Parts: sequence; structure tokens; C-alpha cells
Amino acid sequence: MDKLEQVRNHLRDFAAERDWDQFHSPKNLSMALIAEAAELVEHFQWLTEQQSSELPGDKLEEVGQEIADIQIYLIRMADKLGIDLLGAVEKKIAINERKYPAEKVRGSSKKYTEY
Amino acid sequence: MDKLEQVRNHLRDFAAERDWDQFHSPKNLSMALIAEAAELVEHFQWLTEQQSSELPGDKLEEVGQEIADIQIYLIRMADKLGIDLLGAVEKKIAINERKYPAEKVRGSSKKYTEY
Amino acid sequence: MDKLEQVRNHLRDFAAERDWDQFHSPKNLSMALIAEAAELVEHFQWLTEQQSSELPGDKLEEVGQEIADIQIYLIRMADKLGIDLLGAVEKKIAINERKYPAEKVRGSSKKYTEY
Amino acid sequence: MDKLEQVRNHLRDFAAERDWDQFHSPKNLSMALIAEAAELVEHFQWLTEQQSSELPGDKLEEVGQEIADIQIYLIRMADKLGIDLLGAVEKKIAINERKYPAEKVRGSSKKYTEY
Repeated sequence: MDKLEQVRNHLRDFAAERDWDQFHSPKNLSMALIAEAAELVEHFQWLTEQQSSELPGDKLEEVGQEIADIQIYLIRMADKLGIDLLGAVEKKIAINERKYPAEKVRGSSKKYTEY
Repeated sequence: MDKLEQVRNHLRDFAAERDWDQFHSPKNLSMALIAEAAELVEHFQWLTEQQSSELPGDKLEEVGQEIADIQIYLIRMADKLGIDLLGAVEKKIAINERKYPAEKVRGSSKKYTEY
Repeated sequence: MDKLEQVRNHLRDFAAERDWDQFHSPKNLSMALIAEAAELVEHFQWLTEQQSSELPGDKLEEVGQEIADIQIYLIRMADKLGIDLLGAVEKKIAINERKYPAEKVRGSSKKYTEY
Repeated sequence: MDKLEQVRNHLRDFAAERDWDQFHSPKNLSMALIAEAAELVEHFQWLTEQQSSELPGDKLEEVGQEIADIQIYLIRMADKLGIDLLGAVEKKIAINERKYPAEKVRGSSKKYTEY
């Protein structure tokens, strides 16, 4: 069992011990996940891009916690839906490699529908 | 090297080959991440909680791709900030275990500040 | 001048007096806006739909403040981009009336691309 | 009746004619609203702040439609919760004026809790 699966199991136990599975419908988890994503956005909203790359230590610690919260809900969501998280990622990267051939999109941030 | 680190390296190469690192400031990545989180929300917005737990196969496939997109940006974000993703998750779970003792919060969805 | 224009002008003065226009690029305002939208989502994430329709008074007051925050950033955004907010709304409603003819979509929540 | 109230009534009729009130719980509307807010974010995610202030005409038109979508759901949400939208905004501006005195916060983007 790899580390991600260990964390998934830990989170299962965490929810079960608190009787929180009743709240963890995919609908509700998607809301909790985006609320955490927004806390990340909030850290960066008034910073320049440059500043966002050079966070002082205490901010970096806080940002790390927001990232962890997002990851936690993402693992729960995948688990509840029976989705293999890293397997889905690998499939999606393969799709992106076809959608965005390096020689075609180099240095451009356009969406693939705009090429 | 575990699987998550392999994916992180794959995503590094993916960005480098396309000269996309210039766009991948933490600020910008937080925006891309929440935009993907919202696509997940959009799948569930008019469904009941029950329906969100019983997605038909084609919807589940689409939802899996949105989840993968979120995971991809989360891995990129952690990498760009030098954060150990699963390490941060384990630290956060430990914090949550202190904030939400099982015997105190069982069956309740209140925020810890409300206890 | 109608009430919405009065509020827009008030918000202009508010930002100018604080020298905050430097932070109010459309990019940054979109981040602030979605962060406020997420605070609204957070209020509802563990509630049933029914509960979300029957908020107790103190929660309703808090939700009213989140809604106000979203409206404030939306007015600022439109102002910064030179967009007539209610004019844009009226145009969009006309588009929606064509996209979703009542006799065709009655009682269904599908997206127009799915008909 | 001012223009905003006219739009609110128009949106009421729009939903009623389509039998969509059944979907418009505050919980669901908060999800629809944040999904629209994310479409706005998506327009800006790879742009510099400067570029976000100088959108070409076709992009500005698209952004105007996203802003309209957010406004539409915000009006529906306030209506469903019985909240006076502009009244709530005026109350919130008064709160912000106390939280952020001009002479104290001039030129700073810190959150009021950080002063």
C-alpha cells in the first residue's frame, strides 16, 4: 500500500469515528473543496505574481495548510466516488499531451479550443 | 521515488517542454485550480446529494477528469512552493484530530470555532 | 442617478481614499470575488437544501453580509471594465430566453448543450 | 420600482415559467454562483494584471456575460432568502468604513485582522 492509500484509509477512519460520512456526499464535498481552494486564492489575491513566489515563512506555512485541506477533500471525494486518484491523473496527462503538443503550444497560454 | 513524485516530475517536464513555467506562478496556479474545482461543483449543482452519489458511468468519467485536473494543479502548486504535499496532509490531519476530538463532534458538522 | 450608480460611486470614493485602486485590477478583483463567493458556499456546504432555505436569523445576517461582499466586488469589477452591469444582465436574460425556451426545458435542469 | 427590482421580478418569472424554483435552493444557487465566478477567473488566470485591464473587445464581451451570470444568480439568491440586496451592500460598506479607516490603511492591502 503506498502513502496516498494510507492517507485515504486514515481519512476514512477519521470520518467514520466522527460519524461524518452522512455529510460527505460528493455534492457536499465539492462545496467543501472549493471553499478550501478559495482560501488559497485569498492568500494571493492582492499579491503580485512575483510576491506569490516569494512568500515569507509564516505565510508559506499557512498556504501549506490550505493546500493540505484541498488535498484532503480531493482524496475523500475520489474515495467516495470509487475513483483511483493517481490513475485518473495519469489518464488526464495523456489526454493533455495530445491536446497540447509541445511544438504547437510552446510559450502560449491559449486554451486548446483556441488553436 | 513513489508514484506521486513520479507524477510531479512528469508535470515538471510537461511544463518545461511547453515553456509554461512563466505562467505557473502560485497566484496563477491558485486561479487555475479554483477554476477546475468549479467545474466539479458545476456537475453537482442541480443534483440532490443522493444523485451525486449515484452518477451514471459517463458522468463519473467526466467527474474523474475534473478531479484529475484539480490534482494536477495542486501537485504543480506544491512543487512550485517547495511544499511536500503528503507531508503537509499528514500534519493537517494531526491538527484536525486535535481540533475535532471524536467524542465531542460525533455526528455534528459545526465548525470547530462553534463548539 | 439610480441607487446602483450611487453605490458604484461610493465604492469608487472608498477605494480612492484608501489608495486601493492599485490593487483593483480585474484579475485581482476576480480573485477577491470568488473568495467571497466561497464564503457563501461555506455557509451551505453541510446543510441540506431544505435547511439552506430556513436559516436562523443570525446565520441569515451573516449570509447577507457575504452576499453584500460579492455584490461589492461585482460592482467594482464592472466599473473597472467599463461594463454597464444591469445592461449586461438584461442582454444575458434575453440570450437565456432564446437558449432555454420555456416549453422545451420545463422542469429540467439540463444545460442547453444537452438538449 | 427601480431597475434592480424589475430585473428581480423578471428572473422570478423566468424561473416560474420553466418550473425551475425546485432547483433554486440557496445551497444550489451558491454552487451555480461560484461556478460562474470561476468562469470569470478563468478568463484572467494566465493574464498579467495589466493585460486584465486591457481586454480586446471580444474578450470584454465574454467577460461581460460572465459578470451578468454572477449578477443573475446573486439577485436570485437574495430574492430566495428575502434579503434586500442593495440595502445589505450599504450596511456592509458602513461596516467596512469602520474596519478600514482611510488614514490607517492607505496604500496597504492587509486584511483588517492584520492591523
